[in-house]
Amino acid sequence: MLFFTQCFGAVLDLIHLRFQHYKAKRVFSAAGQLVCVVNPTHSLKYAPTRCAAAQTSVEQGILPPCHHHEAVHDPQLVPCTCPLFSCPWEGHLEVVVSHLRQTHRINILQGAEIVFLATDMHLPAPTDWIIMHSCLGHQFLLVLRKQEKYEGHPQFFATMMLIGTPTQADNFTYRLELNRNQRRLKWEATPRSVLECVDSVISDGDCLVLNTSLAQLFSDNGSLAIGIAITTSKVHNAEAEM
Amino acid sequence: MLFFTQCFGAVLDLIHLRFQHYKAKRVFSAAGQLVCVVNPTHSLKYAPTRCAAAQTSVEQGILPPCHHHEAVHDPQLVPCTCPLFSCPWEGHLEVVVSHLRQTHRINILQGAEIVFLATDMHLPAPTDWIIMHSCLGHQFLLVLRKQEKYEGHPQFFATMMLIGTPTQADNFTYRLELNRNQRRLKWEATPRSVLECVDSVISDGDCLVLNTSLAQLFSDNGSLAIGIAITTSKVHNAEAEM
Repeated sequence: MLFFTQCFGAVLDLIHLRFQHYKAKRVFSAAGQLVCVVNPTHSLKYAPTRCAAAQTSVEQGILPPCHHHEAVHDPQLVPCTCPLFSCPWEGHLEVVVSHLRQTHRINILQGAEIVFLATDMHLPAPTDWIIMHSCLGHQFLLVLRKQEKYEGHPQFFATMMLIGTPTQADNFTYRLELNRNQRRLKWEATPRSVLECVDSVISDGDCLVLNTSLAQLFSDNGSLAIGIAITTSKVHNAEAEM
Repeated sequence: MLFFTQCFGAVLDLIHLRFQHYKAKRVFSAAGQLVCVVNPTHSLKYAPTRCAAAQTSVEQGILPPCHHHEAVHDPQLVPCTCPLFSCPWEGHLEVVVSHLRQTHRINILQGAEIVFLATDMHLPAPTDWIIMHSCLGHQFLLVLRKQEKYEGHPQFFATMMLIGTPTQADNFTYRLELNRNQRRLKWEATPRSVLECVDSVISDGDCLVLNTSLAQLFSDNGSLAIGIAITTSKVHNAEAEM
């Protein structure tokens, strides 16, 4: 009898393992791309600091002075572009990536097409999911933010920003894609430069916007998989001409 | 002097005409498809009628008894599926299309790919833009609705429904596409059956959802162009397998 129970337990374990493997394989192979699991970070930026003033201006419809360039003595220096924290760091654009990796521990991924798997979508707003994406010789910052623009109604905002100048950003097109349950949602746009501040992109709504019900439809077990692809704008323009 | 003034006026008129022609051509040729201009209709459905009760149920999270099948004596009869009006009509599914055309004056368009050009997007909610679309041997109902799910924050909801049974609807995939200003938004899904009631699809948020700022980004002079394509689901499944 004991032998039978143990055998039955082993069979159950095997079935469970096979199911787990199948689930993981399905997520990976559905995209056929590198999957990056991104954990959420509770945003600390809305503490009463210099950025709170910028946020107030956004709400009042004034262009956000998110990064106070006029206060920077060396015009070549840019402030920290981390969307999570108000950080007093300043440096050249070329060293922003290493600052974000070392100080803010933001991961960086290589590859033209990746899958961003945001976990714990149920966490309360404000919450951010952030990675950097290295592609076509440049680095991009992908931000997924859960925010309550209207009290009691959290929404998800996803955007991609180039760690570079606005002129450089114009050379690229990024695509965010959700695909689940015979539903597909694609957003394609030119990335903004990190010098433009992610808060203003989100308050303008110029990004992929999901309300809670759509986010749930595309989520699997509390995680949202976003397929990301970056191309140079020439491809995009050629398509438009066709 | 009078001659000069008249000449100048004629030149201005010519410039204006050329500009109008250019604008129209741009909208048409950008899509390369049949463009259907759809005027808005202020929804009268929210008057205190039988559908108001259904709406209350939706708000309370109960499955909407939008069409009272239990009250229909002949189970082959379906109620009027017009999303605009509470209409006491009942009939067989095969004659719903002619009822919608004749009684509710909803236009019908032919073609696999069409452009739905909704005008006067600024009108206050609740407002509906509706056409029927004949394609692949079936008729579909396209509904764009401006509605305030959250008071003071109107949103746009777009969905496509098959004038047929849920089993028939499963054989198709519809795509709605917005494309303007180097931004592109695509929604792909299986159409729902008109027997399922458009109000519940919209309250579930299982459709293309646009907040006001995104709608403005994709609008041109107060009009929103939505590219529509319908395919059989076999194509969709084959793509997913690839």
